[in-house]
Amino acid sequence: MNGRMVLFLIGQMLRVEGLLMLLPLICAGIYGDSLVPFLLPIVLLCGIGTALTIRSPKKRDFSAKEGFVTVGLSWILLSLFGSIPLYISGYGISFIDCFFETVSGFTTTGATILGETVSIAALSKSVLFWRSFTHWIGGMGVLVFMLAVMPKSEMKNVRLLHVLRAEATGPSVSKISEKLKKTARILYSLYIALTVLQILFLLVGGMGLYDSLVNSFATAGTGGFSIKDLSIGEYQNPYFEYVIAVFMVLFSVNFNIFYLILCGHALKAFKSEELRWLFCIIAGAIAIIMIDIYSLYGSLEEVFRLSFFQVASIVSTTGFATADFNLWPPLSKLILVLLMFIGGCAGSTAGGIKIGRIIMLVKNGIREIRYILHPRSVISVQYEGRKADHETVRSTTSFLIVYILIFVVSILVITAVDEFDLVTSFTSVSACLNNVGPGLEMVGPMGNFAAFSLPSKLLLCFDMLAGRLEIFPIIMLISPSTWKRS
Amino acid sequence: MNGRMVLFLIGQMLRVEGLLMLLPLICAGIYGDSLVPFLLPIVLLCGIGTALTIRSPKKRDFSAKEGFVTVGLSWILLSLFGSIPLYISGYGISFIDCFFETVSGFTTTGATILGETVSIAALSKSVLFWRSFTHWIGGMGVLVFMLAVMPKSEMKNVRLLHVLRAEATGPSVSKISEKLKKTARILYSLYIALTVLQILFLLVGGMGLYDSLVNSFATAGTGGFSIKDLSIGEYQNPYFEYVIAVFMVLFSVNFNIFYLILCGHALKAFKSEELRWLFCIIAGAIAIIMIDIYSLYGSLEEVFRLSFFQVASIVSTTGFATADFNLWPPLSKLILVLLMFIGGCAGSTAGGIKIGRIIMLVKNGIREIRYILHPRSVISVQYEGRKADHETVRSTTSFLIVYILIFVVSILVITAVDEFDLVTSFTSVSACLNNVGPGLEMVGPMGNFAAFSLPSKLLLCFDMLAGRLEIFPIIMLISPSTWKRS
Repeated sequence: MNGRMVLFLIGQMLRVEGLLMLLPLICAGIYGDSLVPFLLPIVLLCGIGTALTIRSPKKRDFSAKEGFVTVGLSWILLSLFGSIPLYISGYGISFIDCFFETVSGFTTTGATILGETVSIAALSKSVLFWRSFTHWIGGMGVLVFMLAVMPKSEMKNVRLLHVLRAEATGPSVSKISEKLKKTARILYSLYIALTVLQILFLLVGGMGLYDSLVNSFATAGTGGFSIKDLSIGEYQNPYFEYVIAVFMVLFSVNFNIFYLILCGHALKAFKSEELRWLFCIIAGAIAIIMIDIYSLYGSLEEVFRLSFFQVASIVSTTGFATADFNLWPPLSKLILVLLMFIGGCAGSTAGGIKIGRIIMLVKNGIREIRYILHPRSVISVQYEGRKADHETVRSTTSFLIVYILIFVVSILVITAVDEFDLVTSFTSVSACLNNVGPGLEMVGPMGNFAAFSLPSKLLLCFDMLAGRLEIFPIIMLISPSTWKRS
Repeated sequence: MNGRMVLFLIGQMLRVEGLLMLLPLICAGIYGDSLVPFLLPIVLLCGIGTALTIRSPKKRDFSAKEGFVTVGLSWILLSLFGSIPLYISGYGISFIDCFFETVSGFTTTGATILGETVSIAALSKSVLFWRSFTHWIGGMGVLVFMLAVMPKSEMKNVRLLHVLRAEATGPSVSKISEKLKKTARILYSLYIALTVLQILFLLVGGMGLYDSLVNSFATAGTGGFSIKDLSIGEYQNPYFEYVIAVFMVLFSVNFNIFYLILCGHALKAFKSEELRWLFCIIAGAIAIIMIDIYSLYGSLEEVFRLSFFQVASIVSTTGFATADFNLWPPLSKLILVLLMFIGGCAGSTAGGIKIGRIIMLVKNGIREIRYILHPRSVISVQYEGRKADHETVRSTTSFLIVYILIFVVSILVITAVDEFDLVTSFTSVSACLNNVGPGLEMVGPMGNFAAFSLPSKLLLCFDMLAGRLEIFPIIMLISPSTWKRS
């Protein structure tokens, strides 16, 4: 393993985090909050980051394994340093809870431990700003950001595709541009543009600047941390709900689609199989839930709005809420739980298994049935208008298997340690592994994760990271063979 | 499609069912029950069976597709005719309920609709005998039985391996003998011998002959229909519980193992990977549940006995109960739910995904992780001491995908139609698709399936058949391309 190179990249990443923390520092300055909670980590991050990057490594070779390890370690360190502001702000929150909250932030999960002993309202504006901003950073990926901003000379001859691959979502990375740096820049430009657009829409509707910013960060990263106890529902403003719902859907769309549209290939973009399935799934889920909850609410508009918002929130794995769907009938709850697993499109900021993978898995199942009917025929899996290569199909099914394994082991351990009811255990794991945030029962949209024990919280942190990085980088970190000397 | 040949085999199968129904007829004679409920279907079965087999088809070719269709249709007809005795006995049970009960019998599920409006105690001894006997027939498979008893001349030049493959359990059929007929005979001889052994053990312990017979039938087929309202627990006899628990485990062992032992290859038999995993899973599950439920019961022996019995019952997918595990703590319930999915060994009468498949899936997941670590290395999945061929691994993962699809669609439909709580919907589908019988909450070991609506019951019948025939034969039946003229 090229350890020097791994450390070098991690150092770069730490410096980037220090840089990004200037924003909440400014926020603290504006609102008169203490500056120490941000100054201290900024000094630490820049110091350690500079120490690690002071000498550029000579050996520039960089394998897939090293890419995974870099990304895995980076995300853990990112969260460790990122939890300092909350920890030292003096709310009396334990370090594991701060770490949980920050992992939940960066992985765009949005599962919170706030609400029980410490309420959200008790936190300072700058800490809440940072909490929501972690969603935004985690959504597109901090290493992708680093690729976008790192000077060209630093990356010469380093094959960083592995890093992009490990941090991006979905079964395969479609490079927008031949040049990696250009791809990273295009992705971030689109990301920033969409975020700014949402902020403007919210401002126009009368939401304050601060609220517009934090809510847009949480939407863009499909995270779901809210600065209100009752989430977006607390605003009691249908306009905000529609704007946020639409943007949640937009942020669960593959960013390549936006790029295609911007380049004038709108027709080609709308031919995307994954996009069409996303819309079908959303429309279908809204229709079923509307019928199911119709009797609970007054007007058709309200029923539509609540269904649309909750479906958009769960399918994009954001986790905002405008209704306590914990109280909805079983069919609606089941639909929402299923949507958690499906998630958004590959190449978006959404979590879950991803629609692209689901399509490929289903088609692979159908192919097997066809194969049994006609053993001598050669049938391939068609995806997005062309033959899906064998390697992608294979790694997709393997992904599913490892995913199920992690899921089952997590539920087992959490039930063994905490003995909560089965629905709570099941949905807490599914909410964390799919980076959704809220689940059902105890961890419903109006509940929180405070009651879980230390081992369960650590395991859920693992699940959130495994979910965000699509399992393999995190598995690699805990695999002994990674650390064996060859 | 060679329709003549399919009908010919179905005809043979119907005659065999008519023949097997002579046993409950005799039982009815002994206990003075009405003979009509059995005489009528016997006449029907033999009449239709003879009409279909009077002329042996000339074209003898027989593809995998035809094998699947034959087995799929056979099992549906088997259940339709098999439900006549219960229906015409005059208990006022609707035909769909009779059909559900019979499908549950043949598929060795053991999910019952009895207990609500009609109690088990109200049924005549001969009808209950037939009900339990369907488990025994379904366990090893009626077409395998037909292969064993059909005269050699009838099967000349017909490739019936497809039939054996479609009806046997597990990812691959290991032929005991080169000759199919001999394999079928060995399997049935072992099956009969083990059943007789269990009957003897129960008789020695003081159980009456009738009870010994029906309980042994239900154990051998890993079915789980009981003739008592409180299942095996009603006997209040630890000896019976131990005997039945041990035999439940035995019947979830691959029958090849017994054959190897009988042939003097005991050492080779115990080297079986699947067998060792079965024992590890059982031991682990018992240990965890013992700790979990210890405080609920009095003595260590009772805790061990209850854990052993319930674990054996669920892992073998029998579904007998000696405790209402619905009232156990969440961890124990979760372990039992997970065991439902795992099931017994391939080549046994147990249901579930099968341990062999789980091993292969897990190893495949591990291989993928290794592959990412060392992309240039060639790593194969080792199973039972040799390389698992690519085809088996592929069809195992495809099995999993189709299995999950059926599972999800079933839960969705049942929740939409009946709106029961999520745990009831989830475990009712898992109990039926895995051929276990009882689930949790409403369908717990002391509950029943009477409250489900007509569409849900039909869907659960589909799930039971799909589970018993390992999905593909039943999928084939509903696939339009099967019925297209080529």
